[in-house]
Amino acid sequence: MKAFTKLLTPQEARDVYARAYAPSPLGTERVPLAQALRRVLAQEVRASTDLPAFDRSTVDGYAVRAEDTGRASSGTPLHLQVVGEVLMGEPVRFAVGAGQAARIPTGGMLPEGTDAVVMQEHTVRTDGTVSVERPVKVYENVLPRGADVRSGEVIVRPGRRLRPQDLGLLAGLDIPEVTVYRRPRVAIIVTGDELVPPGRSLRGSQIHDMNTYTLSGLIDESGGIAKPYGIVQDNLALLVERTKLAHRECEMVILAGGSSVGEKDVVADAIAAVGEPGIIVHGIAIRPGKPTILAVAGGKPVFGLPGNVVSAMVIFEQFVRSVLNAMAGLREPPRPGTTLRARLTRTVAIGDREDHIRVSLAERTGALWAAPLPGGSAILTSMVRADGLVTIPANTTLEEGTEVEVRLLG
Amino acid sequence: MKAFTKLLTPQEARDVYARAYAPSPLGTERVPLAQALRRVLAQEVRASTDLPAFDRSTVDGYAVRAEDTGRASSGTPLHLQVVGEVLMGEPVRFAVGAGQAARIPTGGMLPEGTDAVVMQEHTVRTDGTVSVERPVKVYENVLPRGADVRSGEVIVRPGRRLRPQDLGLLAGLDIPEVTVYRRPRVAIIVTGDELVPPGRSLRGSQIHDMNTYTLSGLIDESGGIAKPYGIVQDNLALLVERTKLAHRECEMVILAGGSSVGEKDVVADAIAAVGEPGIIVHGIAIRPGKPTILAVAGGKPVFGLPGNVVSAMVIFEQFVRSVLNAMAGLREPPRPGTTLRARLTRTVAIGDREDHIRVSLAERTGALWAAPLPGGSAILTSMVRADGLVTIPANTTLEEGTEVEVRLLG
Repeated sequence: MKAFTKLLTPQEARDVYARAYAPSPLGTERVPLAQALRRVLAQEVRASTDLPAFDRSTVDGYAVRAEDTGRASSGTPLHLQVVGEVLMGEPVRFAVGAGQAARIPTGGMLPEGTDAVVMQEHTVRTDGTVSVERPVKVYENVLPRGADVRSGEVIVRPGRRLRPQDLGLLAGLDIPEVTVYRRPRVAIIVTGDELVPPGRSLRGSQIHDMNTYTLSGLIDESGGIAKPYGIVQDNLALLVERTKLAHRECEMVILAGGSSVGEKDVVADAIAAVGEPGIIVHGIAIRPGKPTILAVAGGKPVFGLPGNVVSAMVIFEQFVRSVLNAMAGLREPPRPGTTLRARLTRTVAIGDREDHIRVSLAERTGALWAAPLPGGSAILTSMVRADGLVTIPANTTLEEGTEVEVRLLG
Repeated sequence: MKAFTKLLTPQEARDVYARAYAPSPLGTERVPLAQALRRVLAQEVRASTDLPAFDRSTVDGYAVRAEDTGRASSGTPLHLQVVGEVLMGEPVRFAVGAGQAARIPTGGMLPEGTDAVVMQEHTVRTDGTVSVERPVKVYENVLPRGADVRSGEVIVRPGRRLRPQDLGLLAGLDIPEVTVYRRPRVAIIVTGDELVPPGRSLRGSQIHDMNTYTLSGLIDESGGIAKPYGIVQDNLALLVERTKLAHRECEMVILAGGSSVGEKDVVADAIAAVGEPGIIVHGIAIRPGKPTILAVAGGKPVFGLPGNVVSAMVIFEQFVRSVLNAMAGLREPPRPGTTLRARLTRTVAIGDREDHIRVSLAERTGALWAAPLPGGSAILTSMVRADGLVTIPANTTLEEGTEVEVRLLG
């Protein structure tokens, strides 16, 4: 594994890796609804009741029998006897017969015998009687039982990341606790003799570790729990030890740095030492990110990402995120708004590796334009200034104005 | 305040409220970079060093003086004396003179005297000498000092919600801790004699509280800390007491339910009792959400939202979120991908109140289509099935196929 003997295309790499490792959810846990935002539902939720559970008034007014009101008008108002008042939350202990009505508030339960509500504005109340000045149809101003949800209906399916409105519906259906998938623990190990954590001053040609921070953020956003295992020098024994520890404690291991083909390529050796089958892909025809390792050890995914931060971010997005999402149980179609179509502000010519260029977006003359950001993959500010990424196939020239798909960042 | 004497348009309501209350950030706190994802930066960050801090090689190879290589070719290779090896992280204690070169790894610091790197693939090494087979230009295969960031440059501005790549850049610039805005604490009080928390069984015409859950989710997504204060019966004394408590402990108070004009409209009275100036707007010409209260008490925003969950969500999005974002310190232009343009699948005719319809999105015949979801604002499943919301002005009919702006949910 000391040379990129064969550089797979990104799609070949994905296919080869998918044959070696099929990610699946890790297991489930119960959480209270109040802590379930953004968690991935692991159960099918069926409604155990209708919603609403009874015919509800949608206005303040009088519950009536629609058939009684047929000839009511402001000239010849209908006089109905008021036999009761519906109180919110209380049982309704009376029924309403022909020629009768009951006071009802918005949201109130229709009394037995009634099937419509006359808005208060269209009535005149005098002591025990209410005058109705216009007819109402059956179910007028009423939300019938089961209009929102029918008992037995599947209302949320497993694999869905829960949103505020999902939580509301679950609460309304009396589900105070849900079964969600466990969040995968993802180890981050950065390697490089030159790396120092931020906050410690530099000597010689040292630089500050950035990958721990960008990768932690990406893991968090993808539904994982980032577990940093610190910086390890380019020393095989130390790196094997740390990688084995991370592999025991976490469900996925990411190493960043050092996987280029150099004299000190200890990352590949460390990954190979962790478990079988080991390295599946080493080297991908992608820019940035050629020296990427996709591996499996003892049933857990292990990734060797480039030390370069922009490369590591692109490879995470291209190869790690989908695996992590599957382990997190996510089975949703991509949401609208995760990609946009825009026109290139300038011609882009790409060499022999599929390229993932950083673009900023701006609206101009009624169209959305994607401006490729200057600087290669070593320029982290290109990622900070970028709104999204655009994939351009190998050996392709896209002219200025060409419409491309932009994958939005964060 | 017992009647909607004048119904303001949504824009009038916003303007009136903006004159009564100008939200501003609450203060700041220091957090370690590892906990700063999605926090809103409260400081301007200037680079205290160049990034990279020295000329770095972007390849494995030999650092040389570009001018030496002018006539090198595979036929007439240039022979250079190898005077040292650059080690990652170590100081480079030697200089390179004319006719000399130094071994350098990717990311290594260029030795004094060199200004370019020849890729290893284009060299032949023999003992103390390296043969270079093609010329390199000044800075070829080099990332010059300061190419990414220049010392003194402003790299992130206050008001930005930090993304993974921002964290990486801050780490790279040796900033292990950042000043962020405090997250506003937002009280949620739901009122209604009919409400019961999920997990407790219903009697009479009770229903389960949903607003606590949807509002908590929306507050969290908007950068606030949701503080539920439970369910309060429609009792003025109790509601005033709970609202005053919430108002003391939090920076924003949201009451949901009960603000319709009915016999038991205690929410308006409770809000009015909390502090001056009190209610600024009561009733807005919007659908859903007419019985909305916008208030200020003792310098803190207080909102009375409709009890109906869909209405409360729309009013949160239309009137609460911008206030909360400003209190959270967020000062970013809207991100691309938060709205999309789509065509209506059917004609929509709107009455005398600006309407916020729920739509689901689907791509068809190369265009994006927005299908208005059936059911009024009492149908929470319309929000669960929706991809976004579309605003339609009052007294407007939009024909099938009309392009509209869709604000994406969650």
